[in-house]
Amino acid sequence: MNDHSRLDLNRRRRLGMVEAIWGENKTSEQIASILQKFHLAGELAIATRVDPAKAKSVKNLLNDVLFHKDAGCLTLGEPAALQQELGEVLVLTGGTSDLPVASEAHLALRWHGIKTALLTDVGVAGLHRLFDQLERLNNAKVLIACAGMEGALPTILAGLVPQPVIGVPISVGYGVSLGGKTALEGMLASCSPGLLVVNIDNGYGAAMAALRIIKQHPS
Amino acid sequence: MNDHSRLDLNRRRRLGMVEAIWGENKTSEQIASILQKFHLAGELAIATRVDPAKAKSVKNLLNDVLFHKDAGCLTLGEPAALQQELGEVLVLTGGTSDLPVASEAHLALRWHGIKTALLTDVGVAGLHRLFDQLERLNNAKVLIACAGMEGALPTILAGLVPQPVIGVPISVGYGVSLGGKTALEGMLASCSPGLLVVNIDNGYGAAMAALRIIKQHPS
Amino acid sequence: MNDHSRLDLNRRRRLGMVEAIWGENKTSEQIASILQKFHLAGELAIATRVDPAKAKSVKNLLNDVLFHKDAGCLTLGEPAALQQELGEVLVLTGGTSDLPVASEAHLALRWHGIKTALLTDVGVAGLHRLFDQLERLNNAKVLIACAGMEGALPTILAGLVPQPVIGVPISVGYGVSLGGKTALEGMLASCSPGLLVVNIDNGYGAAMAALRIIKQHPS
Amino acid sequence: MNDHSRLDLNRRRRLGMVEAIWGENKTSEQIASILQKFHLAGELAIATRVDPAKAKSVKNLLNDVLFHKDAGCLTLGEPAALQQELGEVLVLTGGTSDLPVASEAHLALRWHGIKTALLTDVGVAGLHRLFDQLERLNNAKVLIACAGMEGALPTILAGLVPQPVIGVPISVGYGVSLGGKTALEGMLASCSPGLLVVNIDNGYGAAMAALRIIKQHPS
Amino acid sequence: MNDHSRLDLNRRRRLGMVEAIWGENKTSEQIASILQKFHLAGELAIATRVDPAKAKSVKNLLNDVLFHKDAGCLTLGEPAALQQELGEVLVLTGGTSDLPVASEAHLALRWHGIKTALLTDVGVAGLHRLFDQLERLNNAKVLIACAGMEGALPTILAGLVPQPVIGVPISVGYGVSLGGKTALEGMLASCSPGLLVVNIDNGYGAAMAALRIIKQHPS
Amino acid sequence: MNDHSRLDLNRRRRLGMVEAIWGENKTSEQIASILQKFHLAGELAIATRVDPAKAKSVKNLLNDVLFHKDAGCLTLGEPAALQQELGEVLVLTGGTSDLPVASEAHLALRWHGIKTALLTDVGVAGLHRLFDQLERLNNAKVLIACAGMEGALPTILAGLVPQPVIGVPISVGYGVSLGGKTALEGMLASCSPGLLVVNIDNGYGAAMAALRIIKQHPS
Amino acid sequence: MNDHSRLDLNRRRRLGMVEAIWGENKTSEQIASILQKFHLAGELAIATRVDPAKAKSVKNLLNDVLFHKDAGCLTLGEPAALQQELGEVLVLTGGTSDLPVASEAHLALRWHGIKTALLTDVGVAGLHRLFDQLERLNNAKVLIACAGMEGALPTILAGLVPQPVIGVPISVGYGVSLGGKTALEGMLASCSPGLLVVNIDNGYGAAMAALRIIKQHPS
Amino acid sequence: MNDHSRLDLNRRRRLGMVEAIWGENKTSEQIASILQKFHLAGELAIATRVDPAKAKSVKNLLNDVLFHKDAGCLTLGEPAALQQELGEVLVLTGGTSDLPVASEAHLALRWHGIKTALLTDVGVAGLHRLFDQLERLNNAKVLIACAGMEGALPTILAGLVPQPVIGVPISVGYGVSLGGKTALEGMLASCSPGLLVVNIDNGYGAAMAALRIIKQHPS
Repeated sequence: MNDHSRLDLNRRRRLGMVEAIWGENKTSEQIASILQKFHLAGELAIATRVDPAKAKSVKNLLNDVLFHKDAGCLTLGEPAALQQELGEVLVLTGGTSDLPVASEAHLALRWHGIKTALLTDVGVAGLHRLFDQLERLNNAKVLIACAGMEGALPTILAGLVPQPVIGVPISVGYGVSLGGKTALEGMLASCSPGLLVVNIDNGYGAAMAALRIIKQHPS
Repeated sequence: MNDHSRLDLNRRRRLGMVEAIWGENKTSEQIASILQKFHLAGELAIATRVDPAKAKSVKNLLNDVLFHKDAGCLTLGEPAALQQELGEVLVLTGGTSDLPVASEAHLALRWHGIKTALLTDVGVAGLHRLFDQLERLNNAKVLIACAGMEGALPTILAGLVPQPVIGVPISVGYGVSLGGKTALEGMLASCSPGLLVVNIDNGYGAAMAALRIIKQHPS
Repeated sequence: MNDHSRLDLNRRRRLGMVEAIWGENKTSEQIASILQKFHLAGELAIATRVDPAKAKSVKNLLNDVLFHKDAGCLTLGEPAALQQELGEVLVLTGGTSDLPVASEAHLALRWHGIKTALLTDVGVAGLHRLFDQLERLNNAKVLIACAGMEGALPTILAGLVPQPVIGVPISVGYGVSLGGKTALEGMLASCSPGLLVVNIDNGYGAAMAALRIIKQHPS
Repeated sequence: MNDHSRLDLNRRRRLGMVEAIWGENKTSEQIASILQKFHLAGELAIATRVDPAKAKSVKNLLNDVLFHKDAGCLTLGEPAALQQELGEVLVLTGGTSDLPVASEAHLALRWHGIKTALLTDVGVAGLHRLFDQLERLNNAKVLIACAGMEGALPTILAGLVPQPVIGVPISVGYGVSLGGKTALEGMLASCSPGLLVVNIDNGYGAAMAALRIIKQHPS
Repeated sequence: MNDHSRLDLNRRRRLGMVEAIWGENKTSEQIASILQKFHLAGELAIATRVDPAKAKSVKNLLNDVLFHKDAGCLTLGEPAALQQELGEVLVLTGGTSDLPVASEAHLALRWHGIKTALLTDVGVAGLHRLFDQLERLNNAKVLIACAGMEGALPTILAGLVPQPVIGVPISVGYGVSLGGKTALEGMLASCSPGLLVVNIDNGYGAAMAALRIIKQHPS
Repeated sequence: MNDHSRLDLNRRRRLGMVEAIWGENKTSEQIASILQKFHLAGELAIATRVDPAKAKSVKNLLNDVLFHKDAGCLTLGEPAALQQELGEVLVLTGGTSDLPVASEAHLALRWHGIKTALLTDVGVAGLHRLFDQLERLNNAKVLIACAGMEGALPTILAGLVPQPVIGVPISVGYGVSLGGKTALEGMLASCSPGLLVVNIDNGYGAAMAALRIIKQHPS
Repeated sequence: MNDHSRLDLNRRRRLGMVEAIWGENKTSEQIASILQKFHLAGELAIATRVDPAKAKSVKNLLNDVLFHKDAGCLTLGEPAALQQELGEVLVLTGGTSDLPVASEAHLALRWHGIKTALLTDVGVAGLHRLFDQLERLNNAKVLIACAGMEGALPTILAGLVPQPVIGVPISVGYGVSLGGKTALEGMLASCSPGLLVVNIDNGYGAAMAALRIIKQHPS
Repeated sequence: MNDHSRLDLNRRRRLGMVEAIWGENKTSEQIASILQKFHLAGELAIATRVDPAKAKSVKNLLNDVLFHKDAGCLTLGEPAALQQELGEVLVLTGGTSDLPVASEAHLALRWHGIKTALLTDVGVAGLHRLFDQLERLNNAKVLIACAGMEGALPTILAGLVPQPVIGVPISVGYGVSLGGKTALEGMLASCSPGLLVVNIDNGYGAAMAALRIIKQHPS
């Protein structure tokens, strides 16, 4: 490892999770090289925010990487063994446009050995669609709710169920919802007590937060 | 009337509504003088955003004014005759803190001769409280929904009923909800189609918009 | 319909309007698939914010779609029957640059069976152009006013006529008007009482709001 | 004059105008001392943004100062001789709440020897009030238009007359118009060509800009 | 209970927590009346953001209320029984100015029967003070980290320990840190994976989030 | 002229200036068509913000148009006759990056028959370059100062000379100066009295403002 | 020292400077108690942002404190011995309103044993006042330039002299300069290379930065 | 040199540093021409923010330019002779994404004859990586710390070492960290005393500030 690169290869042992390789501002060469270092050190190796073109060119450098198109992620090596006994994290979205971020959260959890499921199109403009799923909501240990626009879904959820709810604001939308600030501030300002929030589009971060919660306390 | 003051005394004839006298940046003397001019010209005379102390000192100048404490408004003269046949405007609030603005809307409608009712504490953190009132919602011609914090109430309403829904963002709250911008942008970004919005705390404006809607179309 | 997709196919029966398919963040395949589901369920099927290239590739998948270039919209199937007796919604714009949003509103109304007309280039920098049209303004049941830059057109209209006026801020412009925030806030801050506002560029939402208003109250 | 104070006592000779003494963040003692220095040096001495209480306590220190209550200004000494031949600057306001800033502009011009008049309550919500004054508008050399809320007045003026129009945004209002940013940006974004703008509430600055314009070019 | 007030008196049964009574925008009479309703219904009764003067006047109306000066909270009735087996929530602060918010979180947890401790003055400008406390950090089930200014404390914590960390931005500071936006955004943008955030100054919300986490999973 | 287009063809007679055709959001066909209408009506025909590719395709439609590459403008027909007796407007810039906007102002003035000159690279980081030009500054009737970054040039000018100074903020820069807001607010907040400001990058608007000033008052 | 208070009493030994006690959000009791702890530990004890009333009540608790009214600071004990050989830090201000912050910087330096001088009223609207002081500028080791409004003074300085220049934005002003954001961003966006900036009104921080610079390198 | 171009060719003699040629908004021709003028005048010639494509096309015009790919810079001619005795400036980064800005600072220093080194991947999420480098930190005369996201690195550094620390906020990130504002404000709001800040991504400016500091004071 050269002088320019002091990757934290024992983070998973220390914190139980790996830092994702943020693919957006890195070249294919940089991504391939860091994935390999993580993998050789026996760590999970996950790169997020990789578009199909960059994924292809990483694959040319590193034949064994797997591209998860829905989530925009690359992985190298096998996921951790499933810890069924920890219970399930449920990832909810309000619309098709929230899928990439929700899928990133879903993949990150699965790769860390957490049971997880994706529940889509349960937006607040048609609450009956959400109420049809109450049993699934009640069975989850942690809920991750992705929502753009006004971002009201996590507020509604935190008023319905007693579990931890993590809101992920999504940057889709136009006008005042462009960039996700409105969804973010709507979640922070929520009148439902105990709602937790992460950065806009931060599916990976929401997954790691759910992991912190679920790992401490086997059910 | 002197050179400095060209009040629009035939607005009610032209538009069917009067401009409110915005009391916040005016002295007691200015408020009393404009109320009297409106009243003498046969117009409705309403001043908004008047605190109790200023109200008292206007009353000292102009004995006949009536102070509506909940709404922070002063009126001079009688309200317009009730036009029962136009139907009802329902004013909803999410919490006690939204009452002053909701009351301003309620008073403004009543003073223009519109039937109106106030429904409080129907916030989105406890949706069952809202669902208990579905029949009242369905019977209104127009709904005015006042909400601070994340401002999700109008979004939920516009997903439930087909009537016009006017969202009024409220400036209560702290942190990101301070000043009402989050509630405002949450309403504008709403995923419920056809939601209409007015300025933060603008109860009077919401009432005048409801009046425009309901006056054109007797039921 | 798979697990990932619970489209709200009875919304039109419940609310009298359909949710538009927001085309901007969807692939051609996603748009084609949702349009078809709506259409097969007997609903209006409208996708907004589709550029010509994406429209062409949807057409390749779904031969019967119709592309409305001015409005950037795709439709599948026939519009609803015209309900002439409800009266007309007039859509006004201040300049050529506002046409796409105005056309989206116009198309959405027509497709829901509402009589509507488009009146362009009536900006506030030359008020005589607007005053020439006073009779048309007076004959409309609802006015939708699209304006970018300082967004003063809806303010002027709401001072001239007693009907409901819906302001649609447009994101054209540069410097402080870039993105439409200035037009939006100008409309919200308007000194004309009872002006109603929707999100920046939200032509479809303005149309649905006009629909809520006009549908309740046949003239 | 001590080491801490190098007031620019020949600015009027150099630029034809004095810098106002901004009273808001100064003590009565500081204001009195600077007014006197200016006056002794043969300059115009004007302090802006002085409230009645501070004015009174300056008067206790410096008996000859004159307090202009409407404008919130203190002056010491006589105004400059009127230069009638330069023509008139017209100061317009949309409402009573804009009067303090309009009066500051009016006083500053008068004190520099410029003929000026104040025209109030010509807001855009009732354009007929403005159109009644077209002759006065046409006779002015420069127009200063003060407006809060959406700030549309200068836009309308610059579309009506060919003279220089200076917009002064006013900080009155609530919600999105709180602090005057909306009025400021509305003026900057104006679709009327050649509209000029100064800082929010900067009546003195608008007056000095008008002075620069009118002084160069005797009519 | 009159028509204006539909308090949610079974929330604790449903969600395991009560909604705090937000005291800032309520009168003493409103606070006293709601506290009593909650208490009579057998619920925890807690009002936050009450200053000493208002607290005193509530006490005049309702003799049994207890004022917690550090936390700015009023309670009526006994706290819930301590559930020692759930483990401890540690509340950390960077400085004396963060104490009111940290104390609000601490009180809310204690009142819901959760074991909790307060650790102050462990700011990031002197990391050795934090490192001295590593054992206490490791023994907590959940960490709540209050920080104003640049808000880096939660980031440092989430890099040190594997438990859930909840950041509470504090509104102390001046210039760019005024109002707490910088601390909030610093926490959301954190490079430590899995950090969770609540609204600025929302000590009560952080406590309820910790409660959701700790209650589901007895150790 | 069809129903969609009511161009204001007598504006030049009424206001002495034409509205520019804002080319950025228009197609080549729209630009060509409006240029021709203006030209046929005997008006100046100027389109701003046209990039070389669009200019070329307009030229294909309308052979006689002239492309001014530095200014990004298209003109059709001859400029107005030079009115030498009105005096000169001097356009100053702080750097090469400000040239397109400065050139737009320069062209617009020349096309309206005003004598004008361009003075570049007189930024405030090297004041001696500005002071070398004092005589030219003193000879101009109006000064237009274009500046990006911190935008201090107009402030310095307005402290040096007594003529009208119009600041044009430029959107070049990165970080906090990205988009020109910092330059704009720096000019509005200027401590030099009587500085006038237009929208970011609005070279045409500054020219029209200078025209309003210089036309009224032949020297 | 109790559990709630782990003041960093060896910071001066480690970093050569003490952390100021930020007085704004602390009670008189808290300030007095921390000043005393610092003093007893042999440290410099300085509290900033103390208004006269609070200063008086601290003095009642702790007789030996010294109140520096211009700077709004309290000190306990003697300043450090003057290190003349390190050279001088010059603190400049654009106007009387910047004096409190400039005085805070001046006091903090003096108290740490640094030679320092204050140069006031050298704003950019009258550059000749600044140019008269070139020799003093050239003799200083570090320059601290305090400026509100458009904040151009540090930019001008950094273009004139080769020494380190630290800009301190000041929160005085109104409209766009309210709160100091415009001055801050103007300094950050400066076209003069190598200008350094601290938080708005952070006189103490600028002094500590100058101390870091000057201490390392005796002249 | 023509009339449009008054480059400041003696700046290095006057200030000891050259102004960088900001390449982002300039054409290849403009960059080549200015580089050559600087070089012919015997100055350092450095252009920043040049992408590989533009670099190639400048090289076609000016064969001797050298492209520094990591830093995105072009240079013409030799760097200044190394002044070893001035000591070293250490440039630190939190991640691979900060490398371009860090490299720009590094190159600018080297080109001005300053000894400098780059230390990467020392982010705050893994403090042990930073603490391993304490000796190198202590040996540097000035530290430049580049950080995006929450930007906490300079805060941690300024709490560890007594030297001048210059924070450079980086525009990498997404959601609230998009554009670098969060990192910038986090550095300005830092609780570590004496931290200095430059504009977002301004590696060159940080280098020139370090140069001002280190040049004055040979060790």
